[in-house]
Amino acid sequence: MIKVTHEITKSFVSESELNAVFSDVEKAHQTLVNGTGPGKDFLGWTTLPRDYDRDELERIKAAAARIRKDSEVLLVIGIGGSYLGARAAVEFIKSPFYNQQKKTTPDVLFVGNNLSPDYIHSIFELIKDRDFSINVISKSGTTTEPAIAFRLFRDEIEKRYGAAGAARRIYATTDRSRGVLKQVATAQGYETFAVPDNIGGRYSVLTAVGLLPCAVAGLDVDMMFAGAEEAMDVCYKEGASNPAWIYAAARNALYRKGYCIEVLGCYEPGFRFMSEWWKQLYGESEGKDRKGIFPASVELTADLHSMGQYLQDGERKLMETIVTFDRPMRDITIPSQAEDGDGLNFLAGQGLHSINTQAFKGTMLAHMDGGVPNIEISCAAPDERTLGQLVYFFEFACGVSGYTLGVNPFDQPGVEAYKVNMFALLGKKGYEEKREELLKRLG
Amino acid sequence: MIKVTHEITKSFVSESELNAVFSDVEKAHQTLVNGTGPGKDFLGWTTLPRDYDRDELERIKAAAARIRKDSEVLLVIGIGGSYLGARAAVEFIKSPFYNQQKKTTPDVLFVGNNLSPDYIHSIFELIKDRDFSINVISKSGTTTEPAIAFRLFRDEIEKRYGAAGAARRIYATTDRSRGVLKQVATAQGYETFAVPDNIGGRYSVLTAVGLLPCAVAGLDVDMMFAGAEEAMDVCYKEGASNPAWIYAAARNALYRKGYCIEVLGCYEPGFRFMSEWWKQLYGESEGKDRKGIFPASVELTADLHSMGQYLQDGERKLMETIVTFDRPMRDITIPSQAEDGDGLNFLAGQGLHSINTQAFKGTMLAHMDGGVPNIEISCAAPDERTLGQLVYFFEFACGVSGYTLGVNPFDQPGVEAYKVNMFALLGKKGYEEKREELLKRLG
Repeated sequence: MIKVTHEITKSFVSESELNAVFSDVEKAHQTLVNGTGPGKDFLGWTTLPRDYDRDELERIKAAAARIRKDSEVLLVIGIGGSYLGARAAVEFIKSPFYNQQKKTTPDVLFVGNNLSPDYIHSIFELIKDRDFSINVISKSGTTTEPAIAFRLFRDEIEKRYGAAGAARRIYATTDRSRGVLKQVATAQGYETFAVPDNIGGRYSVLTAVGLLPCAVAGLDVDMMFAGAEEAMDVCYKEGASNPAWIYAAARNALYRKGYCIEVLGCYEPGFRFMSEWWKQLYGESEGKDRKGIFPASVELTADLHSMGQYLQDGERKLMETIVTFDRPMRDITIPSQAEDGDGLNFLAGQGLHSINTQAFKGTMLAHMDGGVPNIEISCAAPDERTLGQLVYFFEFACGVSGYTLGVNPFDQPGVEAYKVNMFALLGKKGYEEKREELLKRLG
Repeated sequence: MIKVTHEITKSFVSESELNAVFSDVEKAHQTLVNGTGPGKDFLGWTTLPRDYDRDELERIKAAAARIRKDSEVLLVIGIGGSYLGARAAVEFIKSPFYNQQKKTTPDVLFVGNNLSPDYIHSIFELIKDRDFSINVISKSGTTTEPAIAFRLFRDEIEKRYGAAGAARRIYATTDRSRGVLKQVATAQGYETFAVPDNIGGRYSVLTAVGLLPCAVAGLDVDMMFAGAEEAMDVCYKEGASNPAWIYAAARNALYRKGYCIEVLGCYEPGFRFMSEWWKQLYGESEGKDRKGIFPASVELTADLHSMGQYLQDGERKLMETIVTFDRPMRDITIPSQAEDGDGLNFLAGQGLHSINTQAFKGTMLAHMDGGVPNIEISCAAPDERTLGQLVYFFEFACGVSGYTLGVNPFDQPGVEAYKVNMFALLGKKGYEEKREELLKRLG
């Protein structure tokens, strides 16, 4: 099970400061589990590992099996919570090189998360002469980026397979009953999966939103739920040994002392998009009302040779949270070399994973000496069970942390501002006045 | 040519504040071009676009042609400045999907930038049954990560092609005369290229360090130099219209007012690793003596649906710098749709690039209204010429900005701290006392 340690943090905050924040964390925990706080209509994820829809999961597995059989590529169309979770899971569990590997499962390509024509041309090239299916993920169906991508790739798939053939290759993950995408799906006869009403995008990895792409890539989704349920057991237990409490307390105690940037790091490059998912989870949940820790990330040891200088000796407003693994999936032993020109023979016979672990420990001590408090989140191995644990743990700790901070961790009102401006500048009906105003400002 | 605008920033700082910082920027510029400041032995990059080694460039092109002919994969072994620049350039100019594309040039895979055994196993699988060459990049040859990777893949390439065959497939970019890697290269007869003494890793994209991988991937390196020379002309000219001055002045003026995080954003996903390269350049150059702006990055519009909430309404310590392009390499027109279920027909007939540009403009205004000053760096198109311009511009502005901040922008003393601890924990000779101390602290 996940273990959170921050012994080292204790030299940066006093015991009374930690006690004060732990008492707030306890209240936040109760607000969360009793559903008495703001955003209480979006707590579906808290009990999901126990009460997920078994029938839908079977349909997801069946759809995944069909896609694996008839497609060389799955295009996943989605943005934000309908993009990062699935990408993070596939790269973390399979490999950041998943799409380049020889394998029996389809490539999984993500589109509809930007407005770049060059990006979309790349995707068109990658599906040329290859059978593909589409999983379009959008609660409403009107979010600009995925809607544009779906318009373009629906044209392509219908050209390729005819309307009926295309309908059998399009899977819509959307609202259960309302919305444009649901209407189209019903009219065309696409198989649909649900974006539940009571689970926000960034908390939706363990719904059809994340599960279908994961299952297509061959992830063991049952193990993901098993891990999530283990984390649920631990996270629901009140007390100072609850890992979610420790994490929420440590980061809030530090934030109250002026540490306003949290850098999430991991010594496995496959974790890069897990960090991106984490950034959305924490940034979108806590970054409001002009407060919140700024979430950033590093890939280690690579970034010790880029951000390392700053981490060691830049402005002292940083805390670091490092995710570690007790063991890798497959280790490598350092070979001996007769000449020893590189001077590495002192490592010969050692496993690379243990060297990686010593790099972590040495770095943690160095950064602490440099004035950066460190929190460690240690896990067993980078597998599906750990993934499920991490997802649930981070979500639960985020709810607790957000309430501790005094914000609604389940809304995202700030995301609308750019959309309104964009629609106005694009000349959408109903935005005429705003358009005039903005054009004047742009000069 | 690159244009830097920050009209919008002006509402966040007063004219007298800007004037004060411009006067410091002027002095910093003179310190840089006259070579009178700290780190003055590392200014080789300032005149590189004019005085680069023509003979070596021809050898680089010839080596690249050979690799394209005899290899399906080029393994680039390097970390930090010997990794990020080349990766950034290839993904920016070609595609983030470069390695997945059907093409006539070899895949370019980067290794030796981490200590993950799972990552290295992935690379071994990707070169299985495929002809490959190695470009090992290290000034000394003793940096742990690339040295371990070179030991492993040198074994593999020698097994595959024999010692003599392997020697023809290994290209060493290293010190001109000293160091372990230079010795091995001489003994084994590898072709070598120079890591110049007077250019630090993060300023080395336009040396053999960056150029050989770029040339192998089919980038037009002459156009990169042409762009860099154009930027050099502009950056050397004193005055308030110098884009490097504008950028250095804007970010320093904002930093002095408490904006301590700079978020670099771009609406092209292919820019992701350019941002990583930029983070090293600025973080390592300025993050010292307990000061420096914290560099972070976002990929847009994707991250408007993850970090967007924080950017709009989180703690107000952020400035944003957005890199934009006047035109894409290839545009896409939004098609009309009879049913208009998604309500996008108001965009039909528009180019996607122009929609992307309106998203940028709308976002800039929204974020400014939310209290985030914005700087825009606008470029022509995402091609090699722009790449050369951006690389030189960012480097020059970094030198000016670092001197304005009052640090040595060309050293990185903090990078050693973790290495010392790591060597001690790994039991390297000479670190016995440190080892005892650290083990005690780790308990």
